[in-house]
Amino acid sequence: MSASLSPFFDLPTDINNLPEDIQKTILEVQEKAGFIPNVFLMLAYRPAEFRAFFAYYNALMEKESETLTLAEKEMLVVTTSAQNHCLYCVVAHGALLRIYSKDPLLADQIAVNHRTSPISERHRVMLDFALYISLEAGELNEDWVEELEAVGFTREDIWDIGAVCAFFGLSNRMVSLTGTPPNQEFYLLGRLPKDNS
Amino acid sequence: MSASLSPFFDLPTDINNLPEDIQKTILEVQEKAGFIPNVFLMLAYRPAEFRAFFAYYNALMEKESETLTLAEKEMLVVTTSAQNHCLYCVVAHGALLRIYSKDPLLADQIAVNHRTSPISERHRVMLDFALYISLEAGELNEDWVEELEAVGFTREDIWDIGAVCAFFGLSNRMVSLTGTPPNQEFYLLGRLPKDNS
Amino acid sequence: MSASLSPFFDLPTDINNLPEDIQKTILEVQEKAGFIPNVFLMLAYRPAEFRAFFAYYNALMEKESETLTLAEKEMLVVTTSAQNHCLYCVVAHGALLRIYSKDPLLADQIAVNHRTSPISERHRVMLDFALYISLEAGELNEDWVEELEAVGFTREDIWDIGAVCAFFGLSNRMVSLTGTPPNQEFYLLGRLPKDNS
Amino acid sequence: MSASLSPFFDLPTDINNLPEDIQKTILEVQEKAGFIPNVFLMLAYRPAEFRAFFAYYNALMEKESETLTLAEKEMLVVTTSAQNHCLYCVVAHGALLRIYSKDPLLADQIAVNHRTSPISERHRVMLDFALYISLEAGELNEDWVEELEAVGFTREDIWDIGAVCAFFGLSNRMVSLTGTPPNQEFYLLGRLPKDNS
Amino acid sequence: MSASLSPFFDLPTDINNLPEDIQKTILEVQEKAGFIPNVFLMLAYRPAEFRAFFAYYNALMEKESETLTLAEKEMLVVTTSAQNHCLYCVVAHGALLRIYSKDPLLADQIAVNHRTSPISERHRVMLDFALYISLEAGELNEDWVEELEAVGFTREDIWDIGAVCAFFGLSNRMVSLTGTPPNQEFYLLGRLPKDNS
Amino acid sequence: MSASLSPFFDLPTDINNLPEDIQKTILEVQEKAGFIPNVFLMLAYRPAEFRAFFAYYNALMEKESETLTLAEKEMLVVTTSAQNHCLYCVVAHGALLRIYSKDPLLADQIAVNHRTSPISERHRVMLDFALYISLEAGELNEDWVEELEAVGFTREDIWDIGAVCAFFGLSNRMVSLTGTPPNQEFYLLGRLPKDNS
Repeated sequence: MSASLSPFFDLPTDINNLPEDIQKTILEVQEKAGFIPNVFLMLAYRPAEFRAFFAYYNALMEKESETLTLAEKEMLVVTTSAQNHCLYCVVAHGALLRIYSKDPLLADQIAVNHRTSPISERHRVMLDFALYISLEAGELNEDWVEELEAVGFTREDIWDIGAVCAFFGLSNRMVSLTGTPPNQEFYLLGRLPKDNS
Repeated sequence: MSASLSPFFDLPTDINNLPEDIQKTILEVQEKAGFIPNVFLMLAYRPAEFRAFFAYYNALMEKESETLTLAEKEMLVVTTSAQNHCLYCVVAHGALLRIYSKDPLLADQIAVNHRTSPISERHRVMLDFALYISLEAGELNEDWVEELEAVGFTREDIWDIGAVCAFFGLSNRMVSLTGTPPNQEFYLLGRLPKDNS
Repeated sequence: MSASLSPFFDLPTDINNLPEDIQKTILEVQEKAGFIPNVFLMLAYRPAEFRAFFAYYNALMEKESETLTLAEKEMLVVTTSAQNHCLYCVVAHGALLRIYSKDPLLADQIAVNHRTSPISERHRVMLDFALYISLEAGELNEDWVEELEAVGFTREDIWDIGAVCAFFGLSNRMVSLTGTPPNQEFYLLGRLPKDNS
Repeated sequence: MSASLSPFFDLPTDINNLPEDIQKTILEVQEKAGFIPNVFLMLAYRPAEFRAFFAYYNALMEKESETLTLAEKEMLVVTTSAQNHCLYCVVAHGALLRIYSKDPLLADQIAVNHRTSPISERHRVMLDFALYISLEAGELNEDWVEELEAVGFTREDIWDIGAVCAFFGLSNRMVSLTGTPPNQEFYLLGRLPKDNS
Repeated sequence: MSASLSPFFDLPTDINNLPEDIQKTILEVQEKAGFIPNVFLMLAYRPAEFRAFFAYYNALMEKESETLTLAEKEMLVVTTSAQNHCLYCVVAHGALLRIYSKDPLLADQIAVNHRTSPISERHRVMLDFALYISLEAGELNEDWVEELEAVGFTREDIWDIGAVCAFFGLSNRMVSLTGTPPNQEFYLLGRLPKDNS
Repeated sequence: MSASLSPFFDLPTDINNLPEDIQKTILEVQEKAGFIPNVFLMLAYRPAEFRAFFAYYNALMEKESETLTLAEKEMLVVTTSAQNHCLYCVVAHGALLRIYSKDPLLADQIAVNHRTSPISERHRVMLDFALYISLEAGELNEDWVEELEAVGFTREDIWDIGAVCAFFGLSNRMVSLTGTPPNQEFYLLGRLPKDNS
């Protein structure tokens, strides 16, 4: 481990100095991913915030759902983070989206323009709503409920979609505040046939 | 307790059916405030999110700091929530701001226009930065660091300011998603001489 | 009376030096309100503009109408002035709105977000149109006429709504130009049960 | 005189039915201009508003000033009305600007882009400020005062500039509300060498 | 010929030093118009760009079409160039529009606000779409195709409309980059009865 | 070759039916790239526009320059096309940028946010200016000239930067108009160590 990840904050570089539970969380993700995603080191600068952030993350992103898939949640993150100009989230969650969707092109497409991307009507409506929440802090109303339910989302999915956008608005801003870059490993993940498995 | 607080989600109205730890948290706040702030019932709809949300809230808002006061944090919430059009947060945190600052007018002033409010240069810069984070998801840079440090903020304060804005961006969006109204009690709190104590 | 109300213009503080007709107008409003609203002193800096301004004000705001109430006109002022970031008009006309509507919460609600406020469809359409006029200087067209008439407004009401928004756009800008603050008395008016009468 | 000028309101076409003082005002302008500018007929629909509007107009636009010329006031009107998309004011006051400035091109130039127009630094600053007032309802502050005074404007001129922009914001909106078109005569006025006199 | 047309680039003033084919093009337009439109001298600064620019111009603007007239193409240029704040294109193509349409007022009207101009529904839809392409770089979609075909445009017309807007977006930016002013001759062209022929 | 590339226009799929010079251009690019970039087929729908487009492209993009490199021109295209939401240009020119810069990450970084990307001050200023031209059709002025020259750009470079942005604004809009997708081959080009050569 080397110099701080942030030009503004002295983020931890040696996890051995971190609280034990945070060390454990980081070692687990490192084992799974093969490297430590920088956002873990960034948030470890503030242990209480680290714990709350990942508890929230897990509550939203790791929940099983039959009507809103993991790939769909990653689509929300990629599209909204791109419009919030957050490189970390576009690159890291673009990698996850490629892996979950087994589509190596989808993340690049919806990061630039979901309206011209080869996606279903369901996904177009989902991403329209996502940008309304993310960019305008828009309020849910009858029109949106109707449009979202017409493409198959349940009321619980609507909460999840809104909450994922709300949470990644927080995440985008913490990255922008600290200047945390994405790990280089994320850029290529899921782009080549073999590494999807 | 009566009908659901949200036109879109069947939010809990009877806390007895909630997980015990959440009941406990709610009873504590009820005892302190004299009523249950609606945002507690809203988030209790999703216990895991409730726990993460309030852990994050406590990490940011209840932390002691000598260089960034509780009243200053509430100023951040009021100004950014007004521009995100979140009534709940403007009204509830406007009440807290009146109480912490012992100024019955400040919340109304900065909700409409902090630039014409009778506040210090320190607070004008702080709220300019807050809106940059909240509305543009802007990135920290050398110019902002210089401007913020020139009015007395430490590097840790800058993190706190950014993080409070990021967190309330999430909070504003959860309120807008669910349509949760502020409790009536908040509107008058701290407006009259006696109730500041 | 004390120092000038404006940091930029030497606004009158002693009404005895003002033209007689302006003194008379000011004394009348003082008798009615119990204090001199600052906007009267601000405009008295330019007597000819004072006379034209209040003649316009009276033509629009004091006109009797069976289809557009005094409270509805104040709703227009509060919502549009908040989005124009004019504290004086939000606070002063918020007070009038509380008094006319006998609703202590309505002004605070529609100042932040009329779309999530507990108002009728008639009022939602009225305030949507008001913001279109105020923020975009939008043109009336067949669609707006149809939508406004569907919720019960006459053609004369549409003129009144548009003219009130146009006039308070002027008023908001004169306040911003001079930096005139609202009188402290306005903040509490109409918030407590007894003072509505 | 013929059909109503507005698609939405039954504006007067025969001045003989109007109150006497309004008839007199209209006949005077007709004598001077050779035709009745449509905005007089539009406002005559509401006599009390007519009187207040033209009293305000005269207070601002016909006042003698050594430091803010009639041509400069018309520059304010043309630039701000163009960005408010008000054809009537651009065309009618474009004609006045050509006549007062004896420059047949200036109005067309600043209606499209004052920043690339061949105008003085004084006028560039004046029109920057005018758009700040008109489009953002911006507040006066020390920076603007300094910039405006540096190019020769007095404090009284700053009031006049702001008030003219505020008043024409009202005027633009009344035109948009009623759909009042400019008289054809205005389009050519002041474009040819001889008709400047 | 005199000083350079641009404050930033040393644009050619003597066409004799230009490549022969460019001289020939310029002499032809001079013969036809009676003067050399400044944009020819501006682009002659870069002969290869000159040739490509006018080849593109001719491909789009001089093509015969039964369903999209020359006047309609000039309407596209005037409306979009005004919103891009390009004086050269508004003035030069305003002149062409007056000549082609034999309407001396149309260009001034749609430069300020096509929505309140006395134009057909066909032209209102055409100019709505034009601004969507010009200002938002918007994508064609089924809704736009339907709306445009409903007012009589063919698929080929839709390409032409989009391409004209795209090309003049380029043209507007080259003018803004170089600061090229319109020739004085353009301002009056087509305004008087006789010069329409 | 298969179905049309556009949902709206019957773009050519068999180059054998195209004019000979266009066939020749396409075969040359196919030989060099290994495939036919879709934008060539899109523009071949209109041969005269094809010829002008690529003449312009060559004049700007293939010109040798010692002070503005090929990689820098591709940076302009990637950053501005991303903000114009043009997937084709981001993906195709992202590939070229990776190849010219030998940096596999740069394109992804500046497509999302050039301000937080690890680029030089020279490149930050260049891309700030590029977005000003692309998104605002901004005019060159003394401040921009000074800022651009301070980081080493010549006056000729400033023309090139502006012209590249202007030209790709046209290109972005033609892609959006036709719905032309990028070829799949572009997505991976230049991402892996070996394929940079």
